[in-house]
Amino acid sequence: MSHTHKDPQALAEEAAAAMLAMDRVGPLLGIRLVKIAPGACTLSMTIRPDMGNGHGICHGGMIFTLADSAFAYACNTGGGSAVAASGSIDFLAPAHVGDELTAVASTVWRRGRSGIHETVVTNQKGEAIALFRGRSQLVSATRPPPGGRE
Amino acid sequence: MSHTHKDPQALAEEAAAAMLAMDRVGPLLGIRLVKIAPGACTLSMTIRPDMGNGHGICHGGMIFTLADSAFAYACNTGGGSAVAASGSIDFLAPAHVGDELTAVASTVWRRGRSGIHETVVTNQKGEAIALFRGRSQLVSATRPPPGGRE
Amino acid sequence: MSHTHKDPQALAEEAAAAMLAMDRVGPLLGIRLVKIAPGACTLSMTIRPDMGNGHGICHGGMIFTLADSAFAYACNTGGGSAVAASGSIDFLAPAHVGDELTAVASTVWRRGRSGIHETVVTNQKGEAIALFRGRSQLVSATRPPPGGRE
Amino acid sequence: MSHTHKDPQALAEEAAAAMLAMDRVGPLLGIRLVKIAPGACTLSMTIRPDMGNGHGICHGGMIFTLADSAFAYACNTGGGSAVAASGSIDFLAPAHVGDELTAVASTVWRRGRSGIHETVVTNQKGEAIALFRGRSQLVSATRPPPGGRE
Repeated sequence: MSHTHKDPQALAEEAAAAMLAMDRVGPLLGIRLVKIAPGACTLSMTIRPDMGNGHGICHGGMIFTLADSAFAYACNTGGGSAVAASGSIDFLAPAHVGDELTAVASTVWRRGRSGIHETVVTNQKGEAIALFRGRSQLVSATRPPPGGRE
Repeated sequence: MSHTHKDPQALAEEAAAAMLAMDRVGPLLGIRLVKIAPGACTLSMTIRPDMGNGHGICHGGMIFTLADSAFAYACNTGGGSAVAASGSIDFLAPAHVGDELTAVASTVWRRGRSGIHETVVTNQKGEAIALFRGRSQLVSATRPPPGGRE
Repeated sequence: MSHTHKDPQALAEEAAAAMLAMDRVGPLLGIRLVKIAPGACTLSMTIRPDMGNGHGICHGGMIFTLADSAFAYACNTGGGSAVAASGSIDFLAPAHVGDELTAVASTVWRRGRSGIHETVVTNQKGEAIALFRGRSQLVSATRPPPGGRE
Repeated sequence: MSHTHKDPQALAEEAAAAMLAMDRVGPLLGIRLVKIAPGACTLSMTIRPDMGNGHGICHGGMIFTLADSAFAYACNTGGGSAVAASGSIDFLAPAHVGDELTAVASTVWRRGRSGIHETVVTNQKGEAIALFRGRSQLVSATRPPPGGRE
């Protein structure tokens, strides 16, 4: 099955749907898909009481997971199967229980099997909470069948 | 209350106990405290089916959360309240459902209110899964009372 | 002397001029100031034969130095004295002797004494060579007198 | 010519000698090779007056270049040709004119064509100046002939 003749937006939506069907962390954390487009993705998540860390504020790992998820959806909109080789995050302001976070991911560079993607996480007041940058590595040119990877 | 005359190991254990009592993400993900010492912490986590990503392997955010948690416990063993300013992670090998991950965090540098800490994440075969490096920022010299922060 | 009533562009130009007068690495590597504005800076540099590494291509440290310099000018346009706490760079394509590199730095976030700034480095064909992200720390609210720091 | 039967230390020394013969930035900045071993390298550099930045302290780019060079020698000791895909540096303390910096690089992980390597930079008093972490990518299994690469 070739992806080459498909509309990029249709391909992005199909790739996101396939990932959503397998993604278990999204339901675990209540992550919602807001928007998908070629090389871009917007997700949202409400900070629940069980996302607190040992200081009583939102755990950085929950913010990273949201940002990394948006990255993952954005770097797979081309139909292949890409994973993160590395990621870095700057925490700019704390998030609190009840906050509504939005993560906007976009592809800033892509060549061959590698890509660089950035995610900006903001809260319901539009304040920047975190900046994420990840490097993706394409591990296969087409999506694997469900359960059939590696 | 001054921490200055306490035994460092007793202070580390007391700080970890205070964080454990508040930490909600630890129970959410089944993270277990294995070892605590001044400037160091070991945690473990079993990869559950609900930790899978859109490709069917363990979500990088779950691995980051484990590594970041070990970092957080390690950088708070001195009794103050330190948070992550930034973190970066290199994903070295995928983790799968059923894998038993161990995260060993240690402080590599500290001066004034800043610190650098590293976490190595391995699986049950001793294979390296991820390397994490974080920068901590001390936000208060003593721990806040429960619920009383900011 | 207060900076608060100055025109931001005039303040940026004055800050850049003060830095240029002290900057010794700029002349060493032939770095040229192309443009300065509040929170932004563009520099250029021609890759010389003596900038090659052990593989015969442009040394990554020369590219980092260009990107970091643009960052430094950009994060000091407000008139204080800010230094890099950390920086990360992704090398996207090699640069070769004779290449004309341009580094465009911009401030993406600033709060209190901290800032995040990004630099994109491209070559004469407009190809992306490197992406740099740095975190700045304000060490004094006003510029030090020449030779008088620390 | 096969490298497989060579003594690892002899191979490391041969690889370093081949890189040293091409390296132009080393002489430009007065970088000296102190020690080479399989997966490890120590370099030193004296901070000269022409290495100052716009604040009159040692330019972060010079420190990065030293750390990145040690990384480059360390990740090429196996005889192939590896380059940096990315690097991140934490600046821990300023360096000043006259300081004698030492950079110790070691390989922390390697698999297939990728590696992670760390460099610690200290001054003549043994104080930590910077921590560097880089990811290498093997671009060819054997060294290219001089002048013959890409």
